Amino acid sequence: MARLVMKFGGTSVGDLERIQRVARHVKREVDAGNQVAVVVSAMSGKTNELVGWVEQSSPLYDAREYDTVVASGEQVTSGLLALTLQNMGVDARSWLGWQIPIKTNGVHGAARIEEIDGSKLIERLEMNQVAVVAGFQGIGPDNRISTLGRGGSDTSAVAIAAAIEADRCDIYTDVDGVYTTDPRIVPEARRLNQVSYEEMLEMASLGAKVLQVRSVEMAMVHNVRTFVRSSFIEPDAPELLNTDIPSGTLICDEDEIVEKQVVTGIAFSRDEAQISLRRVADKPGIAAHVFGPLAEANINVDMIVQNISEDGTITDMTFTVPEGDFDRAKSVLEQSQGEIGYEVLQGSTDVVKVSVIGIGMRSHAGVASQAFQALADKGINIRAITTSEIKISILIDSDFTELAVRALHSLYGLDDNS
Amino acid sequence: MARLVMKFGGTSVGDLERIQRVARHVKREVDAGNQVAVVVSAMSGKTNELVGWVEQSSPLYDAREYDTVVASGEQVTSGLLALTLQNMGVDARSWLGWQIPIKTNGVHGAARIEEIDGSKLIERLEMNQVAVVAGFQGIGPDNRISTLGRGGSDTSAVAIAAAIEADRCDIYTDVDGVYTTDPRIVPEARRLNQVSYEEMLEMASLGAKVLQVRSVEMAMVHNVRTFVRSSFIEPDAPELLNTDIPSGTLICDEDEIVEKQVVTGIAFSRDEAQISLRRVADKPGIAAHVFGPLAEANINVDMIVQNISEDGTITDMTFTVPEGDFDRAKSVLEQSQGEIGYEVLQGSTDVVKVSVIGIGMRSHAGVASQAFQALADKGINIRAITTSEIKISILIDSDFTELAVRALHSLYGLDDNS
Repeated sequence: MARLVMKFGGTSVGDLERIQRVARHVKREVDAGNQVAVVVSAMSGKTNELVGWVEQSSPLYDAREYDTVVASGEQVTSGLLALTLQNMGVDARSWLGWQIPIKTNGVHGAARIEEIDGSKLIERLEMNQVAVVAGFQGIGPDNRISTLGRGGSDTSAVAIAAAIEADRCDIYTDVDGVYTTDPRIVPEARRLNQVSYEEMLEMASLGAKVLQVRSVEMAMVHNVRTFVRSSFIEPDAPELLNTDIPSGTLICDEDEIVEKQVVTGIAFSRDEAQISLRRVADKPGIAAHVFGPLAEANINVDMIVQNISEDGTITDMTFTVPEGDFDRAKSVLEQSQGEIGYEVLQGSTDVVKVSVIGIGMRSHAGVASQAFQALADKGINIRAITTSEIKISILIDSDFTELAVRALHSLYGLDDNS
Repeated sequence: MARLVMKFGGTSVGDLERIQRVARHVKREVDAGNQVAVVVSAMSGKTNELVGWVEQSSPLYDAREYDTVVASGEQVTSGLLALTLQNMGVDARSWLGWQIPIKTNGVHGAARIEEIDGSKLIERLEMNQVAVVAGFQGIGPDNRISTLGRGGSDTSAVAIAAAIEADRCDIYTDVDGVYTTDPRIVPEARRLNQVSYEEMLEMASLGAKVLQVRSVEMAMVHNVRTFVRSSFIEPDAPELLNTDIPSGTLICDEDEIVEKQVVTGIAFSRDEAQISLRRVADKPGIAAHVFGPLAEANINVDMIVQNISEDGTITDMTFTVPEGDFDRAKSVLEQSQGEIGYEVLQGSTDVVKVSVIGIGMRSHAGVASQAFQALADKGINIRAITTSEIKISILIDSDFTELAVRALHSLYGLDDNS
């Protein structure tokens, strides 16, 4: 017997027929003797419809009212799934964020979970009642509904798993696991059977869309073993009933991973824009002059490269910002031109950040230089580089995305040659 | 300055454009210096859609989950109206049943309001913030969302008005007031400027569809002056800005009514079925044998007529039940045939209950006999009669509905001859 959290996203609960299918997945686990809490998203399309109504009602909307309106989507799905389970003879009830309660901070529209009282859920789970929890929502300090931001249901699921001390959190999604890279670009990409929290966090942060970054952080902090698998598989498929057959990707502690690879995956993100300030006077405090106003405007700066001129008095600064903040960043910097003292501002959104990720890099030297060489061999110019203990990120022209990802995927032996 | 509750039903908030219009109605009252709480229904069609999903998910559904799903409709409207008001520069916030809280009993799907704490709303109203309250919903003793049953938003509005000690509760609906009878049947029907709680309660109970019965009861108990007016009128129409022009029907205490009529209106209900038990042995306790099993099956019996045979040993019993309970009532009585000891059970759904209502009847004799004579003159056979202090109800063949209603409407001088 295990205690499980099962999470189903919007496409998995898109209509009543799909909710039936989800219920069969849940029933399989209940029949196997497991205690189950299910976390559901809104039916696909519903959140977009509600957000559209909010924006039309008030373009500069009050995030508290946004949350009240938008959270209704998950409320509906949780009730419908509970009903469907009951109709299959499975005891179940729905739980809304404020009923558990899932306490969040007061940042409506993008709230962070602060505390979950798991006691009521555990009490019911021990009576073999399935808890169907509305994802994406909680209750703020103002006693109003709060939402966690887009994709927040993954975070809800992991947080609930931590609160009820679940043995595993199963994320059912529209892909069957985490791949070494995007299979649409590299057909030889392989599904990973296991990946460490740290690696998954880098992958999610660097462009892999499988899980929300915040949910992986939470899994890592609370050591919640998180299993990504397909929701489109038949609920009675043999691989789901026989755990010896791998059926997804387990995100877990590094120590649990059997076959450690040097490089686990290649991620890439097109959501990047490059800004270069040419001929900046290289004097103390210049970085603060550049990045202070951007921070004040809530613009995250990622990769930073600074080249010093021969005589050491003039420098070029290059950095990246999210593509959506590009225009705003330029305008902030143009306003500060006098203080900063640059001559020319250049920018481009035709860039992509390609990242090589693997915990094995900690103990293996030379991983980065291999990457640089491989890109050079293909004639790909590197615009910027950042590295951490377990990843290397390289900014290149977006025209070369596929070429670079394939070259790196092959370089580190990730291609599936079977 | 007054404190008002304004209630808008599903058709009035059916889309974003109509919500805009509702917001303009609210703004008019705010601009006039009034404190305003608004109660809203779900967007029209939404509740039916949600109920359909619930029934498809589980034909014998759990009413607690039904409430969780269906109450989301009003939640969305309350948020959208608050946003729309904010966008017009009117301070507003949405309130859900559990936030106020509106405490109900535990009868999910048809809950009754037990207590409303108006203090938080009053505090905000006094800060000139409009309270947009989700109608139809409250919170049960189990800390779960409860709903008040169809049409419950009228009741929410009146109950909120009582809790915040509002000067008036304005019910905006798809008709412009309460009429002497249904204008679709009697084109000469007149709108009433005033009607007493008691009369309105009888009218609502006896077939007039303008207000939910429960809401009128609550208005009467708490003396909430309730004003029925059209939501389709332009928000800046002169009659809404100049209170000297009558623009609807005020439901109020009898003492407030200036021109008292003997008869105020003619109501009728087709939702009736007649059951006759022929040749019942007339012995003590026979009524209990007949009506006991019906009560146990939760079937309301309305009009009862008992005729005793010449020798006093055999009787015929005739009574009415709601049309929807007709088949169930017959089956209950067939099962009890041995105990009751009747010979034949006859029934018909082709009947209609026509009612004459007026507080003036208390002090005027002969109102009933005039009605009987008028129907006799038209050759209309009376199947059963019940009377109370302020109403006479007459059961007739449904073929004669229009004829009877017109005859009675004319008889008591209700026709608009202007």
